Amino acid sequence: MWRTLTCTLTAGGSAASRLSMEGPASPARAPGALPYYVAFSQLLGLIVVAMTGAWLGMYRGGIAWESALQFNVHPLCMIIGLVFLQGDALLVYRVFRNEAKRTTKVLHGLLHVFAFVIALVGLVAVFEHHRKKGYADLYSLHSWCGILVFALFFAQWLVGFSFFLFPGASFSLRSRYRPQHVFFGAAIFLLSVATALLGLKEALLFELGTKYSMFEPEGVLANVLGLLLATFATVILYILTRADWKRPLQAEEQALSMDFKTLTEGDSPSSQ
Amino acid sequence: MWRTLTCTLTAGGSAASRLSMEGPASPARAPGALPYYVAFSQLLGLIVVAMTGAWLGMYRGGIAWESALQFNVHPLCMIIGLVFLQGDALLVYRVFRNEAKRTTKVLHGLLHVFAFVIALVGLVAVFEHHRKKGYADLYSLHSWCGILVFALFFAQWLVGFSFFLFPGASFSLRSRYRPQHVFFGAAIFLLSVATALLGLKEALLFELGTKYSMFEPEGVLANVLGLLLATFATVILYILTRADWKRPLQAEEQALSMDFKTLTEGDSPSSQ
Repeated sequence: MWRTLTCTLTAGGSAASRLSMEGPASPARAPGALPYYVAFSQLLGLIVVAMTGAWLGMYRGGIAWESALQFNVHPLCMIIGLVFLQGDALLVYRVFRNEAKRTTKVLHGLLHVFAFVIALVGLVAVFEHHRKKGYADLYSLHSWCGILVFALFFAQWLVGFSFFLFPGASFSLRSRYRPQHVFFGAAIFLLSVATALLGLKEALLFELGTKYSMFEPEGVLANVLGLLLATFATVILYILTRADWKRPLQAEEQALSMDFKTLTEGDSPSSQ
Repeated sequence: MWRTLTCTLTAGGSAASRLSMEGPASPARAPGALPYYVAFSQLLGLIVVAMTGAWLGMYRGGIAWESALQFNVHPLCMIIGLVFLQGDALLVYRVFRNEAKRTTKVLHGLLHVFAFVIALVGLVAVFEHHRKKGYADLYSLHSWCGILVFALFFAQWLVGFSFFLFPGASFSLRSRYRPQHVFFGAAIFLLSVATALLGLKEALLFELGTKYSMFEPEGVLANVLGLLLATFATVILYILTRADWKRPLQAEEQALSMDFKTLTEGDSPSSQ
């Protein structure tokens, strides 16, 4: 099979970073349904955060740092940082699909920094609570998954920063690492949501015990929260994996990418 | 951007269903690392099944249908059906990448039937156990997620069967539904694994209670099992999402697909 590819790039807009393009990658053909899915994901994310707050406020006495309520800082921070903000950070390349790549990258990296700092506060809260109460640390599946998520999140951020934001890495190196970065980003997000579900279940069984089986309002509220968490993760994953919603290459990236393709023709990733 | 695409398909092999093709989709260029990843996933899957059996045998008195041990049928069947077999069913198109499409489809559908029947036995076991003990049904997040998984799995199988195995659906209809089928297949598999993690956690907290925090051998074994479950899901997802490991179009499908592409040029999926 041989193909002839002839391309005409039409520059448009005022700055070099805002080129518009005729063809399938053109901003004019931006997918019509994407904004609705993004809006739905944001609605779900906000409901999840609000319901977590409502659960802690209505059934767990609210939130405070200097008291036994310090534990409650943990679920709220984790839901805001590692679920809502991490999910939104993954959507940056879909939502700002026609912005300059550099701007999108910086926003993606920054959202992850915010997520990390908020999650760190949540982590400190639970360790301090355990220390004050004399509880054992890191014995449960929830805590093992949580520490794994934290370590992977931090490692992914560091490697992502040094490959994509630090100016050192070559175009070829970036292109090879990109698919791995995208896959592990999604995997870490999914593991974060699974860890949150385990934590929610743990909090319910510790507090409610056998009352859980009597359809107590707190149990029902938390079950609905769990299903909404899973739905939020599904919608984010759907937006990320729709092939026609991926960020189109901008004109200048397209040119670079073609040069690169010509240079490496026949060098398949599986042969490495 | 406009492109000219000229293709020459070279037929080879003895049967029409085993055409070989020059170009990027040729079986000769099958990805070298894929078998290692598949082998690793199978090793992980078998370890997960064996560890579930070991956990139930060593700490829960083993398995029997006509006794209080009936409950133990539930986790074992669910891990075999909805985790191991469902995961393997998703890999069929990657492992048998050069077989005729019809054979691969039938195998994919059959593996899902086996998974469903085994999971159904597991479902009956837990409901019968609850009935005998007088326990409440369907109050926990684990059970809500489990019922959701079951309903989605069944619906996906029915819709998949009527679109892809039943001869009625048109080529155009199949092409439009395929990406949705693939996404929801992966999502249902991930939700199955998350539900298994919730169930494992529930079984630990019900049985061990506060002893869980004393690093009891059962708790540590089950935590390791949980991490291996998450790793199995990650490896399956990695194999599924590697773009260069996707099943190449066979020559006769390629020709059909191109006719279809010409017919529907300009009809973008997002405009539906």
